[in-house]
Amino acid sequence: MRTQVAIIGAGPSGLLLGQLLHKAGIDAIILERQTGDYVLGRIRAGILEQVCIDLMDEAGVGERMHKEGLVHGGFEMLYNGKRHRIDMNKLTGGKNVMVYGQTELTRDLMDARAAAGLPTVYEATHVAVHDFDTAKPRVTYEKDGQKFEIECDFIAGCDGFHGVCRASAPRSAITEFEKVYPFGWLGLLSDTPPVHDELIYVNSPRGFALCSQRSKTRSRYYLQVPLTDRIEEWTDEAFWQELRLRLDDEGREKLITGPSIEKSIAPLRSFITEPLRFGRMFLAGDAGHIVPPTGAKGLNLAATDVKYLSSAIIEFYQDKTEAGIDNYSERCLKRIWKGERFSWWFTQLMHRFPDDGAIVAKFQQAELDYLLNSEAGSRSIAENYVGLPLNFGE
Amino acid sequence: MRTQVAIIGAGPSGLLLGQLLHKAGIDAIILERQTGDYVLGRIRAGILEQVCIDLMDEAGVGERMHKEGLVHGGFEMLYNGKRHRIDMNKLTGGKNVMVYGQTELTRDLMDARAAAGLPTVYEATHVAVHDFDTAKPRVTYEKDGQKFEIECDFIAGCDGFHGVCRASAPRSAITEFEKVYPFGWLGLLSDTPPVHDELIYVNSPRGFALCSQRSKTRSRYYLQVPLTDRIEEWTDEAFWQELRLRLDDEGREKLITGPSIEKSIAPLRSFITEPLRFGRMFLAGDAGHIVPPTGAKGLNLAATDVKYLSSAIIEFYQDKTEAGIDNYSERCLKRIWKGERFSWWFTQLMHRFPDDGAIVAKFQQAELDYLLNSEAGSRSIAENYVGLPLNFGE
Repeated sequence: MRTQVAIIGAGPSGLLLGQLLHKAGIDAIILERQTGDYVLGRIRAGILEQVCIDLMDEAGVGERMHKEGLVHGGFEMLYNGKRHRIDMNKLTGGKNVMVYGQTELTRDLMDARAAAGLPTVYEATHVAVHDFDTAKPRVTYEKDGQKFEIECDFIAGCDGFHGVCRASAPRSAITEFEKVYPFGWLGLLSDTPPVHDELIYVNSPRGFALCSQRSKTRSRYYLQVPLTDRIEEWTDEAFWQELRLRLDDEGREKLITGPSIEKSIAPLRSFITEPLRFGRMFLAGDAGHIVPPTGAKGLNLAATDVKYLSSAIIEFYQDKTEAGIDNYSERCLKRIWKGERFSWWFTQLMHRFPDDGAIVAKFQQAELDYLLNSEAGSRSIAENYVGLPLNFGE
Repeated sequence: MRTQVAIIGAGPSGLLLGQLLHKAGIDAIILERQTGDYVLGRIRAGILEQVCIDLMDEAGVGERMHKEGLVHGGFEMLYNGKRHRIDMNKLTGGKNVMVYGQTELTRDLMDARAAAGLPTVYEATHVAVHDFDTAKPRVTYEKDGQKFEIECDFIAGCDGFHGVCRASAPRSAITEFEKVYPFGWLGLLSDTPPVHDELIYVNSPRGFALCSQRSKTRSRYYLQVPLTDRIEEWTDEAFWQELRLRLDDEGREKLITGPSIEKSIAPLRSFITEPLRFGRMFLAGDAGHIVPPTGAKGLNLAATDVKYLSSAIIEFYQDKTEAGIDNYSERCLKRIWKGERFSWWFTQLMHRFPDDGAIVAKFQQAELDYLLNSEAGSRSIAENYVGLPLNFGE
C-alpha cells in the first residue's frame, strides 16, 4: 500500500488532520488500535476554543456543532462560599467558547470520513513506524492476523500519550518534561440538566469541583479525589453527596441528580515532549503533550497542532516548500507551553495539595480575591481561557 | 511613668506611629532594645509605595524624601537573556514608586522625634508587656540596671519578628501561617552608580538577581544563594563575578563595581499572624507579618498597619469610638494577605527552587512570556507592585 500521509490514531487529532488533508486533495490512511465504538466511548473534554471551532468549519464538519453546541460567554468561580462570574465575552472583546463534547466532535469527524469513503483501519495491531529519518517512511501493522505495510511521505503521530510514535523516536533526540499531580479527578456523566447554564469551577476546603456540561440535558461533574481512591468505592449517591458539600446554597438547591452513564477517575499530569518532529514523523495532540484538565486546554492544543501540521503538509505538496514542516515543532511548542502554563497555574489555584500547609490555602484565597476584584486579573484568566491569539507574543 | 501609647520598637513602624500620634496630640513613649545607630545600620528595603509616601507627608517628615528620593515609573524584568520593561506609570494610570532607603526614612523620623523632644528609650532591656487584656496595660523594662514601669492605654507592638509583643499574646488566641523558602538573598551595598536608572529583576538559570539602588550613587545588589552559603565565603569579587553571570550583555558592560559597604545573607520567609489585636495590644509591621523581599512589600505593609493603627487610636481619643480599634486587625489583614500573596507569587516566578524539576523552570519562562506580552498580565504585575488601592475589593 502507498499513501501520502500515514496517520496513527483515529481520535479527534487524527480524524481532523485526515479531513483537512482530504479537503486539500492529499491522501491519508488512518490506523487505529481500537474499535470506532471504543474511541467514541472515551469521555473527554467538552469546551472548544474559537481556533478549534474554526478548524471544524474549515474541515467542513461544523454543521451539527453549530446547531447543537452551546456558546458560553462566561463561567463562574466559587470559593469561600461565594460565586464570581468571569465575563469572558466582555473581558476579551467578544470571544466565547463552545460546549460540545469531544465524543460528538469525534462522531462528526468519523461520519464525514465514512461518507467520503476515506480509509480508516480500526483494530490495527502491532503498528510500527520505520525509516522516518529518510524521505521514504513506512508503517507496518497487522489486521485480522495478516501483515500489512504502508509506504508514505509522512507519518502523523496522533496516537496519544501511550502511542507508538513518540516511543519510536530516538531517545537521544527527545527531551520530556513531566509533572504528576498528587490527586485525581473523579468524573460523573449523567442525563440530567446542568446545575447552572454556565460552568462552575469550585475551590472548596474539601477540594476542587467542576460543574460542567455537554448539553442542556447532559451534565458532567468532577470532584478532586485522592489518587488512592478506587472507582468501585464511589457510588453515585456518594458522588452527589460530596458534590453538594463542595457547592454553595444555590448549587445545592438547584442540583438535579440522576444515575451515572459513565464514572471514572483520571490522574492529572503535565507532560511536554520536545521536539515534536523527527524527520518525516510528527507528533500532534496527546502524543506530544498532556495538560491537567483544569481549563480544558487538551483538545484545543491538539487542534492547533493539527492546524499547523495540515498547513505544513499542504504547503509541502502545493508550494514545494519545507518551511512549514521545519517550523512545525517550534510553532506548536510556543503555544503548547502557554497552554501548559495556564493549565498548571489554574490547577494550582483551584486544588488542595495534600503537602501544602494552611498558608498556601490562604494564598489561594488571596489570589482569587485579587483576580476576581481586579479587571487585569480577571482579564488574564479570561484571555487564557478563551485561548490566547495565535500570533500572541510575536 | 504614664503615657497614652507605649510603643515597643523604634524601627520605622514605631517611629512613624509615634510621629502620627504626636501630630494628633497623643502622648507616646518608644522603647527600643538596641541603640539608635544599630537601628540605622539595618539595611532593608528602599522602595516606597504612594501610601507610604503619603504617610511620611502626613507625619510631616517628607521633606528630604521628596528632595532626595528618586521617582520610578517602571522597572525591568530580565529573563532568557532579554529585558522587558514594566511601565508601571502607564499601566496603572499614573502611579509610581519612590526609591528612598529605609535607613534614610528611619533617620528622618528619628531626627523629627528628637527635634520635637519626644521620649525614646534606647537600650531598654527586659521589656515585658502586662495586662493588655484590661483597660490598664503596663510595660516594664530595665535601663542602666534600673527597673521602670509605664502605665498606658495601649501597647503598640512594633518590635519586629523576634519581638516580645507577639510572643506575649496568648497562644490559644493566635494562629500563625508560615512558609520558609529554600534559599537566601545575599545583598551587597556599594557606593557605585546603579547599573541602570531603574531596578532590574533577573530570572537567570543561575538563580534570581536584583539590581536595586538607594540613590544615584549608591547601589544595592542581591543574589539568590543556597541557605548553606556563609557570608565569609563571599568576597566582593566573587559577588560581582556571579552578578555579571546573571546579567545580560548590557548589564555586564555597564556594571560599575566597588568595595562593599555592607554585605549579608538574609533568609526568605512568608509569615502572617492572625489576629493583630489582643485587647489593648496591637501588632504592626514585622511583629505581625513577614514577606519575602521580592516586590519590596515589607515596609509598605508596615506603613498601612501604622496608618490604620494611628487612625484607630486617634479616633478613640478624639471621637470616643472603638470602631477603628475593633476593625484594626481585619482591615490590616485584608491588605496584608494581598501583599503576602503577591510577594510569594513574585518570589516563585523569579527564583530557582532546588526541588523543582526542569518543567517548573519552563513554566516560569512561559509565565514570563505570557505576562510581559499581555497587557492584562503586565498590568497585574504593575498594579500589585505600586500597591493595590486601599479600598481594593470593597
